[in-house]
Amino acid sequence: MEPRQSEEHPACANPTERKSHHSEKVKTNLTSRLNRIEGQVRGIKKMIENDTYCDDVLNQISAVQSALNSVGKILLEGHLRSCVTERLQEGDTEVIEELLTTVKKLMK
Amino acid sequence: MEPRQSEEHPACANPTERKSHHSEKVKTNLTSRLNRIEGQVRGIKKMIENDTYCDDVLNQISAVQSALNSVGKILLEGHLRSCVTERLQEGDTEVIEELLTTVKKLMK
Amino acid sequence: MEPRQSEEHPACANPTERKSHHSEKVKTNLTSRLNRIEGQVRGIKKMIENDTYCDDVLNQISAVQSALNSVGKILLEGHLRSCVTERLQEGDTEVIEELLTTVKKLMK
Amino acid sequence: MEPRQSEEHPACANPTERKSHHSEKVKTNLTSRLNRIEGQVRGIKKMIENDTYCDDVLNQISAVQSALNSVGKILLEGHLRSCVTERLQEGDTEVIEELLTTVKKLMK
Repeated sequence: MEPRQSEEHPACANPTERKSHHSEKVKTNLTSRLNRIEGQVRGIKKMIENDTYCDDVLNQISAVQSALNSVGKILLEGHLRSCVTERLQEGDTEVIEELLTTVKKLMK
Repeated sequence: MEPRQSEEHPACANPTERKSHHSEKVKTNLTSRLNRIEGQVRGIKKMIENDTYCDDVLNQISAVQSALNSVGKILLEGHLRSCVTERLQEGDTEVIEELLTTVKKLMK
Repeated sequence: MEPRQSEEHPACANPTERKSHHSEKVKTNLTSRLNRIEGQVRGIKKMIENDTYCDDVLNQISAVQSALNSVGKILLEGHLRSCVTERLQEGDTEVIEELLTTVKKLMK
Repeated sequence: MEPRQSEEHPACANPTERKSHHSEKVKTNLTSRLNRIEGQVRGIKKMIENDTYCDDVLNQISAVQSALNSVGKILLEGHLRSCVTERLQEGDTEVIEELLTTVKKLMK
């Protein structure tokens, strides 16, 4: 499990400009996954241009959706373990309403 | 509704190299949507690099998921109205098993 | 694989009163799954009445969603292999528009 | 918005037997939704027994899925605003790992 940021983080506390505070390791992981997704999307464009059989293209879209879901889950993990925990422990319950709105969009 | 390809299409019939046969209008629509998605994915990478607050990034991911779903639905429409219909009407029921496998991946 | 209904089925052809034509085996399978789902839903009600911890209830809801998805996939299989195939092979392409509307609701 | 339980709740704090603490209003709402879902599931069983056309049954399944999703979202709301908030503010971060596991199951 990613070592949680033990010390309070000004990044989340400042309502005017909230920042995330992922470790470099998590950021590198997310960036490499997004690079791959970007390449897959370009690949799908190519398939359309080349009149690739639709079933093959649909399967590629499903693969990109899964890859995106994984990125979303990594982000949600980091967010819950850092900013949500810190803001709540500082008594800032508004983060719960914000979290609810976002999680509902990600739910089936 | 997109004018259905009335005449038989060799594109779907040839098992060794099946091709889709979207109209130019559909291909342009799909390509411009995929261009936008590609840009959004690059934007999410930028957000990660700039330590953008996770909630904002998660909302962007949800937007890309919806955009991808729309592309999938347009493709499925074209596929069902052309290749699936033509192959079935030529007695090639294998297309149903292929369709089932793909649709199950796209289902909740 | 469920033996496909080879002979033409009036069940699907009659637009005024279309019927499905599952085998008894499929119907028994679907009914027993739905019985279990019904019991699970009653169980969730009980959990709510007994103030069961929300996380446990949410996990039960996720289990019922998966069970329902499985029933949906069995039905879609039967539908595609029988009525959709038969109606298309009789030249009735309206079934494709109907199928598209339904599948889109089941997609993510 | 449902009045948040301001005072500390022993219901969530006791690890051996955690309880939810919904208001009677929320419990009544959840119970009536679950009654309706139970009825819909029984209705789907009836449709199968009566060989109802598959497309109609699939649409009913989609309706039950949406109804279940709504119940899940109401529960998640209550859970986040009460137990998750209270346990975190008491320094019990284990609730975050528990929440992550559950939310991932509910995500696309």
